[in-house]
Amino acid sequence: MKKYLAEFIGTFWLVLGGCGSAVLAAGFPGVGIGLLGVSLAFGLTVVTIAYSLGHISGAHLNPAVSVGLWVGGRFSAQELIPYIISQILGAITGALVLSIIATGNGSILGDFAANGYGDHSPGKYNMEAALLTEFVMTFVFLLVILGSTDKKASPGFAGLAIGLALTLIHLVSIPVTNTSVNPARSISQALFVGGWAISQLWVFVVAPVAGAAVAGIVYKVFSTQD
Amino acid sequence: MKKYLAEFIGTFWLVLGGCGSAVLAAGFPGVGIGLLGVSLAFGLTVVTIAYSLGHISGAHLNPAVSVGLWVGGRFSAQELIPYIISQILGAITGALVLSIIATGNGSILGDFAANGYGDHSPGKYNMEAALLTEFVMTFVFLLVILGSTDKKASPGFAGLAIGLALTLIHLVSIPVTNTSVNPARSISQALFVGGWAISQLWVFVVAPVAGAAVAGIVYKVFSTQD
Amino acid sequence: MKKYLAEFIGTFWLVLGGCGSAVLAAGFPGVGIGLLGVSLAFGLTVVTIAYSLGHISGAHLNPAVSVGLWVGGRFSAQELIPYIISQILGAITGALVLSIIATGNGSILGDFAANGYGDHSPGKYNMEAALLTEFVMTFVFLLVILGSTDKKASPGFAGLAIGLALTLIHLVSIPVTNTSVNPARSISQALFVGGWAISQLWVFVVAPVAGAAVAGIVYKVFSTQD
Amino acid sequence: MKKYLAEFIGTFWLVLGGCGSAVLAAGFPGVGIGLLGVSLAFGLTVVTIAYSLGHISGAHLNPAVSVGLWVGGRFSAQELIPYIISQILGAITGALVLSIIATGNGSILGDFAANGYGDHSPGKYNMEAALLTEFVMTFVFLLVILGSTDKKASPGFAGLAIGLALTLIHLVSIPVTNTSVNPARSISQALFVGGWAISQLWVFVVAPVAGAAVAGIVYKVFSTQD
Repeated sequence: MKKYLAEFIGTFWLVLGGCGSAVLAAGFPGVGIGLLGVSLAFGLTVVTIAYSLGHISGAHLNPAVSVGLWVGGRFSAQELIPYIISQILGAITGALVLSIIATGNGSILGDFAANGYGDHSPGKYNMEAALLTEFVMTFVFLLVILGSTDKKASPGFAGLAIGLALTLIHLVSIPVTNTSVNPARSISQALFVGGWAISQLWVFVVAPVAGAAVAGIVYKVFSTQD
Repeated sequence: MKKYLAEFIGTFWLVLGGCGSAVLAAGFPGVGIGLLGVSLAFGLTVVTIAYSLGHISGAHLNPAVSVGLWVGGRFSAQELIPYIISQILGAITGALVLSIIATGNGSILGDFAANGYGDHSPGKYNMEAALLTEFVMTFVFLLVILGSTDKKASPGFAGLAIGLALTLIHLVSIPVTNTSVNPARSISQALFVGGWAISQLWVFVVAPVAGAAVAGIVYKVFSTQD
Repeated sequence: MKKYLAEFIGTFWLVLGGCGSAVLAAGFPGVGIGLLGVSLAFGLTVVTIAYSLGHISGAHLNPAVSVGLWVGGRFSAQELIPYIISQILGAITGALVLSIIATGNGSILGDFAANGYGDHSPGKYNMEAALLTEFVMTFVFLLVILGSTDKKASPGFAGLAIGLALTLIHLVSIPVTNTSVNPARSISQALFVGGWAISQLWVFVVAPVAGAAVAGIVYKVFSTQD
Repeated sequence: MKKYLAEFIGTFWLVLGGCGSAVLAAGFPGVGIGLLGVSLAFGLTVVTIAYSLGHISGAHLNPAVSVGLWVGGRFSAQELIPYIISQILGAITGALVLSIIATGNGSILGDFAANGYGDHSPGKYNMEAALLTEFVMTFVFLLVILGSTDKKASPGFAGLAIGLALTLIHLVSIPVTNTSVNPARSISQALFVGGWAISQLWVFVVAPVAGAAVAGIVYKVFSTQD
């Protein structure tokens, strides 16, 4: 049960910290943190949980990560579903707390930090660009996770490498899809926004999970003995 | 006595570096560091002291941290009061030095870097949002501290994880309360501002200490043997 | 073959992540990541690949790096050509994926993230300044690589030092040449831009390779026994 | 001789990278890196040299650091003068290269990245504020250096802690003095600016050296056996 609680808290923190920085601070007048600050915030949610609760649950905090690790032979099938449930519940709880804070000055939630394409992409990128972006970003994200936690990698540095990979992914792709690479994060926001966010949600489940699964297969090439 | 001097210097640096970046550099015309720079500065005060004086005092630099570690069974009761006194005195000394520098171009201190809610929140968030934000941010901050200094965590990385957690907390919550999570930091600013800052100070003592104490209890779940 | 695949994927990521941040996010209205965000993105492509695939190929991701390591006696002559081919093919594939995403909102590629001097320098710096900048930046870059991977250096930290060196190089030199220090990165962009970018390409091959080679020679001074 | 070459190259890089980011990129129209980017650049010059050439010379890169380490009993008297000469020559060479690049688009050097107070302080802070700022910033800088390189500190992390301390110092104090804490850096700029920069130079020699020396004395308190 400790593992599931750690995944719950970690994904709660990913949404409260990452989406929270976007909703509360990105566009603050004159001194806002912008997309750079939001990118840093998402990455730091992973860095901070990886080094604090990683020794308990592995700090997946993301259903696509759990799937990619399972395909890559690093995670057991019977833990997959409880991990994903813990992550989604944690993400929704993070979104709930954020919604209470964010409306505490009379603001409305509006589009919250939901992911979208077409008219709902920050830079109006179409569905094909969104699918390609989410697929390839999650693909490399999982390669970084699988490689940096490999026995042959530098011990201790995986948490930094993985968190900073998430920062990098956001630096590139917020304009395209508002960056998901994490179905739990997307679900948590879509539930509070409804309408278009729900109907576009499939993109942010299918593309990250597919990218993660392909990475799990590709990384096996690197694991074989020479 | 070495421990108390280290806490004094470290908390002096947290206020001079963190609040100093906010007061002197955040809004500098055209090239100001903004809330992102201030967030980085607060985190780096902890990173730099953790790796330099951490081996002397543990680098708490914050009464809420000392309380959370005590509740979590990691810090002795008889050191709690002298640590907190050292932290508050260091914070006030940091604020004093900052006040001398900041007025060295004829500026007035105004609201300094004081914490507040309602009309004194940077984004006009109400007291309920302020209490919830300070509680939950300090709660996760202490979980990161307790987890990253656990014997099972990667040795050496705790200083980075904890400092970057403080950066992340600021990235999210400066618009709500100007971010405290640290009663010593709040007290040091309120003493120079007076009036409203003193009368709102209880929020920035009660909520961080409560969040830290609850984290100390929750983390015990992760410490039990399976 | 694993090494070549790792170099292909790593350089793909360097171009998609680094150039991608410049093309998609640097100038995003109101909250763009600016040159600071682009600098961070380029550095993080190296940090993330160094810690994940570095144990497979060494994570050169750059023909100038491979040349500098070969001159410095750290890399074998027979692997030089296949490494460089893998890097260039990876970079071009990264540029191809980026071109598909970037045009997904109806934008044209324009100057993409090509390197240039004179009228094609972001700050209109002349050819002499461009040659000097690319030479000296790659020179120090290789010293950092050779020194941080020396047996006498702190184990594990090379990936951070090298990646953050690339961030630093971009912080200084984007206004001068849009920053190359990497012929594969420059070639990948020039192929999509054509015209002036092709005719100026020699600068971004000759200067980085020359700087890297001189660093390989100079570092031998530090390797000799006292 | 290797040590002196390492100090020369390292201080060359500190000026080219740190002052270079300020001169070339801080105010670049629309996407400039601002004071935050300059702060990061200065810190990364130290991070990158500490991990690459630190095992050769210790990576002081700063006469005040060498003095502080000598007062603290960590550096031998007979190496003090050759280290300082190497640092100053490296800094001047860095400024020379920067001056060639910076004027490569027809710009004039103007105030370069010189340090100043009063009318020459970026935020018009007076001499007293400048002296206090440079003294206290260098004082804590040296405490971080002495503490993080103590035998009892986490091995390997000193380079990050020290470099990020320099970033933090810049985040706070660029508006006051343009931040020196390093006489070699100040001398290198003043030589190219002349006039006021020469006549104010004493502040940026005396205050950093005094702050460093006092830190060397204070740290001895932490080194004594209990």
